[in-house]
Amino acid sequence: MDKITLADIDALALGSAFLGTGGGGDPYIGAMLCREAIAAHGPVPIVSVDQLADDAAVFVAAGMGAPTVIVEKLFSVDDAHQAVRALERHLGRRASAIIAAEIGGINSTMPVAYAAMRGLPIVDADGMGRAFPSIDMVTFNVAGVSCTPMSLADEHGNVAIFETATAKTAEDLARPLVAAMGASVSLSCYPMTGMQTKRAAVPGTLSAALSIGRTMLSQGEAAPVDRLLATLRSLPYYNHAFRIFDGKITELQRNTDRGWVFGCCEIASLDQRHRATVNFQNENLSARVDGHMRAIVPDLICIVDSETARAIPTERLRYGQRVSVLGCSAPPQLRSREALKIMGPQAFGLDDPYVEIEELLAGSPERIEETENGEE
Amino acid sequence: MDKITLADIDALALGSAFLGTGGGGDPYIGAMLCREAIAAHGPVPIVSVDQLADDAAVFVAAGMGAPTVIVEKLFSVDDAHQAVRALERHLGRRASAIIAAEIGGINSTMPVAYAAMRGLPIVDADGMGRAFPSIDMVTFNVAGVSCTPMSLADEHGNVAIFETATAKTAEDLARPLVAAMGASVSLSCYPMTGMQTKRAAVPGTLSAALSIGRTMLSQGEAAPVDRLLATLRSLPYYNHAFRIFDGKITELQRNTDRGWVFGCCEIASLDQRHRATVNFQNENLSARVDGHMRAIVPDLICIVDSETARAIPTERLRYGQRVSVLGCSAPPQLRSREALKIMGPQAFGLDDPYVEIEELLAGSPERIEETENGEE
Repeated sequence: MDKITLADIDALALGSAFLGTGGGGDPYIGAMLCREAIAAHGPVPIVSVDQLADDAAVFVAAGMGAPTVIVEKLFSVDDAHQAVRALERHLGRRASAIIAAEIGGINSTMPVAYAAMRGLPIVDADGMGRAFPSIDMVTFNVAGVSCTPMSLADEHGNVAIFETATAKTAEDLARPLVAAMGASVSLSCYPMTGMQTKRAAVPGTLSAALSIGRTMLSQGEAAPVDRLLATLRSLPYYNHAFRIFDGKITELQRNTDRGWVFGCCEIASLDQRHRATVNFQNENLSARVDGHMRAIVPDLICIVDSETARAIPTERLRYGQRVSVLGCSAPPQLRSREALKIMGPQAFGLDDPYVEIEELLAGSPERIEETENGEE
Repeated sequence: MDKITLADIDALALGSAFLGTGGGGDPYIGAMLCREAIAAHGPVPIVSVDQLADDAAVFVAAGMGAPTVIVEKLFSVDDAHQAVRALERHLGRRASAIIAAEIGGINSTMPVAYAAMRGLPIVDADGMGRAFPSIDMVTFNVAGVSCTPMSLADEHGNVAIFETATAKTAEDLARPLVAAMGASVSLSCYPMTGMQTKRAAVPGTLSAALSIGRTMLSQGEAAPVDRLLATLRSLPYYNHAFRIFDGKITELQRNTDRGWVFGCCEIASLDQRHRATVNFQNENLSARVDGHMRAIVPDLICIVDSETARAIPTERLRYGQRVSVLGCSAPPQLRSREALKIMGPQAFGLDDPYVEIEELLAGSPERIEETENGEE
């Protein structure tokens, strides 16, 4: 496979919804953009980071905003173009490839749509192998690539270009501006050479999203959630994959603040004997079962439909839904000491230390079995 | 006079404090910057708009933020340089002259300091002949000069460049960013040619500020407030100049919101028989006496010390101060139908219509006399 065609869009949308771990915006909007763009401009070549020329000009195309708003205000490829063009003009350099900042959610599909429109290849990589709520939370930043110059564009043609000392400052300054721009904008940041991309990106994540999505679309003997877990276990990063909990949603809290959605979701096992709590800031941050931590950021926590194994983004969680909470290991680039400072639990204001999911769950397989048996 | 020397700084600071109509930041900070810059780099040549070459590159240097914050966070010439340099790089054009956006307050002195540092002339003109709280409220905008590209810089070296469809949008997007940047930043906007400056600026306002300040510094037979009124009446724009009220401050309300200071000041005549109310958003917006409108924006309303005639900026108003409320006519460029849409009472959310001060006060000279006579 070396091109993304119309036939790949559904798989990409489903896979990236899973890797969005509850956030990243509704991938079906991105899928729609992708379909339109590929229908108009043809398939999008995929390049691996190894295939990138050292002097390639790799540009990020992304959307920024609260998922609840993004559902209502469509990202547009034209806005992405405004943002990338502004950065190209600022740098005096034209893009030779497009890369996703995050492979989770709409930010995985939108760059594909944009690459189609530009006739450019999309890089099989991203900056996290999941989704995160903040511009500084990318491996590009961990690896020392400058977040700025960064451009923001809204649907009215307004553009802002930032030059900041740190990625955290870029985030802190862009966030109130995004709110002023209507809580949903397109942006381009972390402009990189091919050589920088090789060093700083998480490779293979676009392929991983496609694999996950194809599993969800495929038929098989085993239950969809089990087949999904099997696929995750076959992938390079997500191989420590667990079913953390099964049950029904019994409580849901969501608040939009400064362009983020904060909240938590409570799930009760069908026998009412056990309870799981997943808390989130756009993305799911931690999963507890009966008060015990079972998975914590940057490891991936995804709430999926128990029957279809399809991911349910935060804004689509509903009281009474039957769901499974799945968890899997983050790419190793996210687990380093340096990376954890930027995207570990403390970066989200959590008190709990980061413990790898395979360690958290090694001690309690019986609980997982138990909750599974507890189903009707 | 064709240069601003160290000997002119006090007059410029005092005159611009008056034209600041309560806002524009504490001019003494700007005076301090001016003194340092002129001591280090020499006097600053003044050019009239007529002397500007048609293709001159005229750059605005300004500060933006809440006056209460600006008092504590000094503007710096280095930050102004960051902002102007960012815009110069963005446009690929070097400044050949510096212009103040507003001649009122710190934004009149800071550009002089910056011009000294750059070895560039300062234009004897500005965009309003007073001070206003908002980026779009300038004659440059009324005349159709684009506000953007606009650059913002903070003291940490962070820079943002905006391209927006309208000056109002530039204001709306910059305002939350200024708050995020610490409520006080330097900016450059409305980059103009010499030809545009001739068409769009209010000429002669730097000279006017110097005249007003020199009057305040001079000795004379008449009382300082009377001498100030005489000077205003001799100037081209401010010639309809009135003493609206004399009394003591009896009540004061001030709230900082979104980087602006909103509030009002109540003044009672010494015989307690009359009451004036001045309300402000950074700058004084309207003055009522015993419920009757006596002056309204864009005409100038300034609260001065009754004895010295020196302007008291909003943030230095104190209970019990003996003050005079003075009002004078705005430059005609601010009184056109188009200008009033941008900087008239309704632009500030006031219900009262704009009526020229000479008309408002023509009908009630006895009231002015009365309050004067009411003094002890």
